[in-house]
Formats: sequence, C-alpha cells, structure tokens
Amino acid sequence: MTAVPSAHTPDPRAGGPARPGPAAHAALSATARATVTAGFWAERRRVNAEVSIPQGPERLAEAGNLENFRLAAARATEGFQGGYPFQDSDLHKWLEAAAWQLGDPGTDADSRDELAKHISEFAELLAGAQEDSGYLNTYYQVAKPEVPHFSELRWGHELYSAGHLIQAAVAHHRTTGRTELLDVAVRLADHIDESFGPEGSGRPHDSIDGHPEIETALVELARETGESRYTELAGYFVDRHGGALSHHTQQGHGRPGYFQDHLPVREATAVTGHAVRQLYLLAGAADVATETGEPELREAVERLWAEMVARQTYLTGGVGAHHSDEGFGHPYELPADRSYCETCAAIASVQFSWRLALLTGEARYSDLIERTLYNGVLCGVSLSGDRYLYDNPLHVRDGYADQEGETPRRVPWFRCACCPPNLMRLLSSLPHYLATASADGGELQVHQYATGTVAAPLAGGEAALRVETDYPRQGRIALTVTATGQDPWALALRVPHWSADTWSVTVNGAAPSADEVALADGWLRLTRAWAEGDTVLLDLDLAPRFTLADPRVDAVRGCAAIERGPLVYCVEGLDQPRLAPGEGLDDLVVDPTAGLGTVERPQLLGGVTAVTATARRRPRPDATRAAPWWPYRPATAGTPDPAGEPVTLTAVPYYAWANRENCAMRVWLPVGE
Amino acid sequence: MTAVPSAHTPDPRAGGPARPGPAAHAALSATARATVTAGFWAERRRVNAEVSIPQGPERLAEAGNLENFRLAAARATEGFQGGYPFQDSDLHKWLEAAAWQLGDPGTDADSRDELAKHISEFAELLAGAQEDSGYLNTYYQVAKPEVPHFSELRWGHELYSAGHLIQAAVAHHRTTGRTELLDVAVRLADHIDESFGPEGSGRPHDSIDGHPEIETALVELARETGESRYTELAGYFVDRHGGALSHHTQQGHGRPGYFQDHLPVREATAVTGHAVRQLYLLAGAADVATETGEPELREAVERLWAEMVARQTYLTGGVGAHHSDEGFGHPYELPADRSYCETCAAIASVQFSWRLALLTGEARYSDLIERTLYNGVLCGVSLSGDRYLYDNPLHVRDGYADQEGETPRRVPWFRCACCPPNLMRLLSSLPHYLATASADGGELQVHQYATGTVAAPLAGGEAALRVETDYPRQGRIALTVTATGQDPWALALRVPHWSADTWSVTVNGAAPSADEVALADGWLRLTRAWAEGDTVLLDLDLAPRFTLADPRVDAVRGCAAIERGPLVYCVEGLDQPRLAPGEGLDDLVVDPTAGLGTVERPQLLGGVTAVTATARRRPRPDATRAAPWWPYRPATAGTPDPAGEPVTLTAVPYYAWANRENCAMRVWLPVGE
Repeated sequence: MTAVPSAHTPDPRAGGPARPGPAAHAALSATARATVTAGFWAERRRVNAEVSIPQGPERLAEAGNLENFRLAAARATEGFQGGYPFQDSDLHKWLEAAAWQLGDPGTDADSRDELAKHISEFAELLAGAQEDSGYLNTYYQVAKPEVPHFSELRWGHELYSAGHLIQAAVAHHRTTGRTELLDVAVRLADHIDESFGPEGSGRPHDSIDGHPEIETALVELARETGESRYTELAGYFVDRHGGALSHHTQQGHGRPGYFQDHLPVREATAVTGHAVRQLYLLAGAADVATETGEPELREAVERLWAEMVARQTYLTGGVGAHHSDEGFGHPYELPADRSYCETCAAIASVQFSWRLALLTGEARYSDLIERTLYNGVLCGVSLSGDRYLYDNPLHVRDGYADQEGETPRRVPWFRCACCPPNLMRLLSSLPHYLATASADGGELQVHQYATGTVAAPLAGGEAALRVETDYPRQGRIALTVTATGQDPWALALRVPHWSADTWSVTVNGAAPSADEVALADGWLRLTRAWAEGDTVLLDLDLAPRFTLADPRVDAVRGCAAIERGPLVYCVEGLDQPRLAPGEGLDDLVVDPTAGLGTVERPQLLGGVTAVTATARRRPRPDATRAAPWWPYRPATAGTPDPAGEPVTLTAVPYYAWANRENCAMRVWLPVGE
Repeated sequence: MTAVPSAHTPDPRAGGPARPGPAAHAALSATARATVTAGFWAERRRVNAEVSIPQGPERLAEAGNLENFRLAAARATEGFQGGYPFQDSDLHKWLEAAAWQLGDPGTDADSRDELAKHISEFAELLAGAQEDSGYLNTYYQVAKPEVPHFSELRWGHELYSAGHLIQAAVAHHRTTGRTELLDVAVRLADHIDESFGPEGSGRPHDSIDGHPEIETALVELARETGESRYTELAGYFVDRHGGALSHHTQQGHGRPGYFQDHLPVREATAVTGHAVRQLYLLAGAADVATETGEPELREAVERLWAEMVARQTYLTGGVGAHHSDEGFGHPYELPADRSYCETCAAIASVQFSWRLALLTGEARYSDLIERTLYNGVLCGVSLSGDRYLYDNPLHVRDGYADQEGETPRRVPWFRCACCPPNLMRLLSSLPHYLATASADGGELQVHQYATGTVAAPLAGGEAALRVETDYPRQGRIALTVTATGQDPWALALRVPHWSADTWSVTVNGAAPSADEVALADGWLRLTRAWAEGDTVLLDLDLAPRFTLADPRVDAVRGCAAIERGPLVYCVEGLDQPRLAPGEGLDDLVVDPTAGLGTVERPQLLGGVTAVTATARRRPRPDATRAAPWWPYRPATAGTPDPAGEPVTLTAVPYYAWANRENCAMRVWLPVGE
C-alpha cells in the first residue's frame, strides 16, 4: 500500500477534476480559482446542491447500491441489487459530486456537515467491502463470486468502476485533504497495478477494461499522490487499445469499434463506437499526453477532437447518434429525431475538451464546452433538479410526446443510473472550468462567464477579478480587477465563435489602445500593468440568429435552427397558440429572411428570453383514404402544399424543453417546403 | 386429432400462400394460376431454385437446426445448437419454400425428386421430434426442458415457430396433396387449440405469443382442412393483443408497443413496434377479416395499411426504420442511412398487402407489392443467390463501406437466419401473386407483369392468356388470349401509379372503344367477348424520373431519388469514374432540371438499364485543423461551397447494389446545396 504524501496542503478552491502535475506539458495550469455567486449557473448549481445531490443517497439506497456494499462487507454471495456490473459506479460518482460540492466555498455549513457525514459513512462502507487484496467491486464479490476477478473484462466494468472510485477519492482529497476515500482508492489502484501489465511483466492480466475510465482516473491519482507509476499504467491501458479484447461478433455492441479496440488510439482517424467509452478513453489519453508530452499521442487526441467536432457533433454539443449501440454515427450522420445524445456523452465531451484546453491553451475547446454545457448537458436534468433524461433528441414528432415508451421522459432515476450522478459531479465542479492561468504565469484566462470571482497566482503576484454579468440573458460581462501585482499581465477573455466579428471591449470606459489588445483564435488578450479597480467591459452579440448545418449533414438539409448567444433554441408545441396542443409542429416552415425577435419571459421556465420567428404552417396531410396513398411524387409535380397559414413561432432554450407537459419539439425547422 | 379431409383434390398450380376459403368475404379469389417462364423474375426465380433453395439443407445442417430435431427426437436435453428459441422456424420456412417450388410446373424432374426427398426426410425428423401431446419446439424440448411449455410467451416463439411449420405443411399439402407434414402440423395446431383460449374456457393459457405468425398460419390451416375452429383461434389471438403479455419495461424491446400489445388491433391508429411482428399480425388479422367479414377488423387493417404506406414506408417499399428494436419509426421518420428495412419486414409487407388485395380487390395493394418486390425484397439476396442482407440501408457513407461491422455485408447465412428462407419461400411462391379472378367470376386481374401464362376459371368458362414482356427493362406488355368462354369478361390490367397518366393500350392493334375500356383506381379494365388470339398491348412509361418525398420526411428533405418504372435506382461509388473509389459520393449535388438518360448495360449486374444524371461535386471539406472547426454556420453566411466540379452520375437499380466491391451508395441525392 502506498502512503499518501502527508505534506499535501490542499487549497480547497484550486484544482478541479483535471489538474496537470508539476512536470506536465500543459499550456495552462489549473491553479486558478473561481466562484459563481449569482446568475444563470449559480441558480443551476443551487438546484444541484439543494435538490439533486441531497436526493442522491436516497436514490442510491432505493436502487440497492448501498445494500450491495453492505452485502460485500458481510462477504455475502447473494442478494445483489440492481443487476448491472457497473452498479457501484453510481455511488462513486455521487461521492465525487459531494466532494466537489464540499469544496465549494459557497456551500453553507449545514450542507457541508451533511455532505461530510454521507461521505464519511460511505467511505466506511467502501472500506468494509474492500477485499484484503484491495479488490473492490460488489457485483463480482456478491453476485458472481465464482467468477475470477478481471476475467470478464469486456463487460465486467471492474476497472471502470474503480476509476470512478479513484476520481471520487481524488476529489475528496483535493478539496478537503482527507484520506479515508483516498486510502481505499490507493489500495484498489495498487491492486490493479499489480494485476495489469504487458505480457512478460509478471502481472497476470495484459488486457483492458471494456469501458475506459481507469485511464483518466489513474493519471489524476498520480497527480494527487505523486506516484508516477499510476500514469505509466494509464499509458499502458491507452496504448493497449487495438486488439486487446477478444471479439466474437462483428456488429453492434460486440464489434471491436464499439470498445475502441479496433485500432490503437494513435492510428484512429475518427471517433467511433460507444460514445462515452470513446470520450472517457480520449480524456485519459489527453491526460497521459499532458503528463508525458508524447507528441504522437497529443497529435492523436487533437486530431480526434477536431474530427468529432467537425463531423459528428450535434448543434447542442451532444454526441452519439445511435440508439442501438449508444454510439457515434458515421461522419455527418446526425439525425435530429433519433439523436441519442446520451447525457453522459455530453459530459464526457466536456471532460475531454477541458483536458485539451489545458494541454493546448486554445480557446475553441472552451467554446465547445460552453455550447455543450448550456445545451447538450443541461437538458439532461429538469429545472427542478429531480428528474433526468438519459437520451436527448432534438426532435419529438407530433402525436408521440405523450406516448409512454415512444419518447424520452424525465424520470427521477434510471435502472442504468449513470447520468444523474454524472450531472451532479459536473455541476458541482463547474467553477473549475471557468478560469486558468498560463503555465508561464503571465496570463489569466477566463473561459466561461458567470458572476463571481476569478483569481490566480501569476508570476508577478496574485491576480483577482470580480465578474458581473447577466450572461447569457445579456451580452455584457463586467470584470473588475480586485488584486494584481506590479508587472503587466494579460487578461485573456474568450470570445465565442458566434461573436467573433461582433464583440466590443472597453478598459476603464475607453477603447484599449492597439498595443494593449489582440484577438487571436478566440482569445481576446488585454495586456497591461493592471491596477486594482480597473474595469473591463466585454460586450458579446446576443442577437438571435438562424443557423445552418454543413450540407453534408443529410438529416437537417433544408432546415435552420435558432440560436442566441451560446443557447440553442427549440420550438415546443405548447408555446404555439395557433396549433392544437402537441400537433402540427412538423408542418411548420420557417422564413429565415423575416428575422427574429426576442421577448423576455421572466416567469417562463425559470426565466428565459424567448425568440419569435415568422413561419407558415402547411396544410396537414389528410390521413383518410381519399388522400394520395403514396407519399412520394415526381419532381415535376411541384410542391404539394405551397401555401399555408402564417404563424408566429415562439422558441425557448433547448435546455429547458420537456419541463412542462409532454409535447412535440423541434430544434431544426424546415426553411423550404 | 383432426383427420385431413381425404376428398381434397389439389390443383398444383392454384392457390398460393393465402387462399380465401369458399365462404370468404374476399373480392378476389386465388383460383387463378400463373407461370413465369422468361424475363426478369424467371431469372431471379431460377437462381432461387438452382442456388438458394438447394443450399438450404446444408446451411441448416451447419447451423445446427437439423441436429436440434434429432436431439429432440432422441429426447436429449443438452446440445441445442444455435441458441435462439425460434431456431426451428428456419427449417419450417425452408420447407415452405421447397413445397412451393415443388408445386411450380417449371421445376424439372430431378429438382423435384431432390426437393421431395428433403421434404420427406425433414417431415420424418419433425414427426420424430414431436411430443405425444403434439407439442414441437426443439428449443424448449432440448435446451430448456425444465421450463413448462408456453410459460415464456414473450420471447419463447413457440407459437411463432408452430405457425411457420403450419404454413409449410399447408404449402406442401396444397401443392402435392401429401399429408406427412400436414399431419404433424395438425397435431401441433390441435395441441395449441387445446392449450389456448379465453379465461374461463378451461384452456390453460389465455395469452399470446410475443411474435405473431400463428394467426395467419391457423387461418390457412382452416382453409386447407375445412376446420373453422382454427380460424376462431386465430381470431382469438388477434383480438387478445392489447395487454395480453406482462410488460416490465417501458422502452425499446420490452415496451408493449414492440409486441403490438399496447392496444387492441381494432384501436391502433398507426403501425408500431417490431416491424415483422406488426406485419405478420396484420396479415393474420386480414386473413381473419377475410374469412369472417367482420367490418371493424377489416376497417382496421385497411386503415393501418394506409397509415403505414403514407407515413412509414421507404421509397423501396422497405419498412422499419429503427436498428435498436427492428421497429417502425414514428410517422415520417425514414432516415436513409439508418434505414433498418429488414428483408423479412419487406416480405411481411408483401404478405400483408396481398391479403388486402384479395380482400378488397384494390390495385394499390399490388402497386406496393410490385415496388416492394423489385426493391425492398430483392435487395436482400445477391444476384448469385447465395449471399444475403438482413438490414437494407438506402445510404452508405463515404469511407465506411469497407469497414467491417460498420455497414451491412452480404453473407452466406446469419446466426439469426430468418431472412434467407423467407426470401426463398417468397420467390418460390411468386407466381401466385401475379393473377386473380374476381369472386363473381367476371374478371381476370393481372397484378404483376412477367412473361408466362395466366389462367383462371371464370364464370363463363376457363380464361387463359399468354404474357410476353421484357418488363421492367421495357414498358410493353403483350397479352394474347389463349382460352376463353363465350361470354364477355373483363381483363383487368394494373397500371402502376407512376404511369397513371402515361399508359396506352391497344386491342388487336387498335385503340379499344370507349365502352370497352375504363381506368379506375389503378385497374385498366378491358371488357369484351374475347376470342382466342386476341392481343392486348399495354405500354407503360419507363422514362426515368426524379422523385421527391413528402416534405414531412425530414431525412431526405432537399433530395431527389431516381426511379424508372418500378425500379428505385441508387448511385454506387464504383460506377462514378471521376471519383476516387468509395469516396466523394456524399459531395454530389444532382441537377433535376437537366434530365436523365438511359444506357443499356447488358453485361452489368446481370443486365441493367443504367440511368445517367447531371450533377456537380462539392469541394471536399478540409479535415485539417485549418478548416473551420465548427460545422454549423449563420444563415447569413451563405453556402460554403457553391461551385463544384461537374459530374455525370451513373445510377443502377437498387436491388443490385452491393453485388460488386464494397463502396459508398446513395438512393437520395441532394438537389440544392
């Protein structure tokens, strides 16, 4: 067993879910601290802290997750609850969520006590369930005691669950300095380290887990403990992909590509297979590349990110088109109606992008993170914080919204409950994605905009800012310097791609001089000798806009979507007064030349800026037998219903859809016929 | 046990897979006989008879299906092969295929002997395996002897497999008069009849099989044996849908709609769930309605057919959009790239449509059958007759055709081998779908066009025609009266919907007089006192055409397809000389205003008429990091690549795709950007 370095002095606000080590090859450091005190994300995080996270223990108890650990502790071999081999990971992810929340300076004392009490109780449960060897997985301990450990790697999820436990332990140690979870995690990691290695290494297993996750967790554990051998083991797992598992079938769930085991990571040219598996693997690979600086691996993760974004990402930032294997489709295969877009896959995308942001310092990674957070992630939890979506379509057809089993519904928990605690841990760790400092200490980057504070130890001394904004309702972000050293430093503000040509900035009320300001690749850099009280006003362009897709995206050809700032909008049936409830949405044809309006709706969906558009509604097809029985027609026949009733559409942010009654919904609206 | 009526005198050429009984409420009778002696279908049927069907016994032996019956006969309880509970049905469907082929007057003596020998051998195998009770299902006899019969109805497929056995037995008896298979089937049907019935009937089971099939089989058995109680039991099963099975899960495979158990058939407003299950059920319901004349049930099957065709059918006639549950999508959810379009579902559609054709006499049912046969069904088997497709996409993207597991491949057999013998039985019974006589005996209908003969006993005496045509290569169909009674009768020729305004006809070289000819709802009726030697020339319009979809079909908005006559065309990468093999197909934009050409290619794909079109090819997107990283753009930005290289496309019939090297393929081609 490895001793946890006792000299570690945690700063409860520094270092989030990915903290490059002291020798890392990262452009940015995670030494900045940010708080979110008011506005959009403060409210979403309040609900997460007051509703979602507190409900976790009860949900986990109901689903049997806690009982499984009690059974394992009692060395029972029957009674396993839930049935999935990855059942343990739900608790682990909840623990990670609780740990980040505990580290948030905005968490009040009562909540803090409650969180600490649960973590302590669950840590004891885990320690009790852990075998003397360090092994810990209640499915194999209780439900399948006859199966040798690590012998069902394709579907067993033993390393996957271990990875989530390690991440929880790192979060707990990083935010509190406490070691009760970390002790369990280190024992488990050491057991894995003794068990896995290349053929000839004397370790009994040379394969990989069918579900990546251990890779990123091991690198984080190395960062937290200083034990570089965990990074080496992570690197081994990353490199071992490409023929490690035995594959008996060639299609669907069983195909090698599903597991990203068809090719070595370095040779892959496109993301493929199960989306969460793919992105957890790439997050881990990015972590390894960050620590080792290995150029080929870095090139591979950058290339695969670019491929994913250019060809396999939905407008919402969601990824994974297929229901059948929860997987990526082929390039440009992005159907709106059958967009699987698992909530966990969007979260995984954020995690992968963040690691690349740290590694490269490039703004586009945080651009995608912003889009994904506001749309593809946030849609996964109800505004009330107690109901979740697993898959997130961009289109629900007329007449199907209220049919059970036909359309995703927000529910309190899932039998396969990966998404809810994943949302909780992302939201509780969200401030860590807001700001960084460059590795050389000369620049402070603000990646995301929220009212609160940002601070970082720069080379010339501590720099701190107060941030005030009503973003994304309004486009103005006000930043006030509250601490600074003497030397000049750069304040880098991310300008989102949709405002790249329409931003404006002032420093202390005046345009900055040409030598003070530069925009390059999404970073607006203001370099000067800052003084306390200096104010920066950044204005981003929140005019609503119509957006078109690459013409290769077959599924939405001839359609436009409505966006405003970082928000993707959707049209829900019940907001359209001239339509029967839940009907007629698929007959709307929007006119992008007529422009868009905005309406403030403070009472609607927690307060939104609605967007209005001009459209017409095609006559509904006659379902009777007198209508043409065949829905295809010669091109010479022209449009069957060129006219149609004029309609003013009201669109609301996509993240808020399905929070009222079930109804039809569209993100992409036809513009032609 | 029911005695088989000994007085039955089979006419080996009359009565195909659905033969309405003497008291049926059908508009048409299946007393007509047709032969196919040359041309398109003769060649496809030759390959079926000489390659596909003869390979069946070997494939069934390799897959273990035959061994399972031997094991069951030996009362063994281990060693079950294949693993699926519906394993037996592959043999049953092959037996049905062999029986129809045996009944084809074009089958030579050697083939006949070979088929009869196999049928006899397999009938003995089945009889040996059958339990004293009449029960027969090797999965439950050998693999699951501990499970009580009919206790796993949701997934057990016991009645499904029984249905296929009954259909095989009916086919064998109908074509040969022999009873060895029918004896087994009747014992099994009687056992089912004793076992299933309404609560309170004293029969132990009141539920349904999770996979319909028994319904249509029982009606056919009633027709063949005269035992109306089989039709009553079929009616019970049809009516029992809507809450019969216990459903624990609400999504995907487990949801009630998957099994069409969410609603009674009479109340359903749209086809839903697993496509083959839905269509076998509706075929059975149509059979019941045909025999009973029950108006509500008839109305339901007509309504559901119309709904399916108007909103849930692909251009190819294929049905079932979803991979995840092999099911129907929602109305207008018809993606080209993820069209599951299971071969069996297209076959089931033909079977359902044919029953409605017989019931109503309406031409549109055979219009859809023609489209489905030439496209959605025929694509399921290679031109060589020895390789099959299970799912049939209408789009294979650039770069994925040669990636194992990413795109369907033609293979010699499947582990789940439902489709190959299903294709065999449809092709061997195909002549039965060509002609009918009206129930009143006053009209002979020709539904499909093929060189051969058509004959039917009309009220005024036997009527017979010789048919000569090179359809669908050419549009002329020549029909010569070879037998006729004295009284006038109507010759009804189906005019496909794509030629509804462009057909022409002559009788004995002259335009028929106005009182002799009438076109109504797809039937061109020529009524006169026919004489032997009278000739009718029908010309259909085979000019190639661009086809558009209903604007509600989101997936192909802004696209056109190429069709010619009943054939849907596709563009395969390897026919496009200016493109790199398998690349660049997704960047083609077709110009529908430039017209289409045809090129006879007798050496290509067994002889096809290729169609040429004018297109341009968009510049390929730059995958490097210098290209825009985000594939969505403001509507104000215009088309990213308005120009492009001019290309002449060559399209080939869709049924023939994937018969050469693997390459990209598209049916729907963008017309705009």
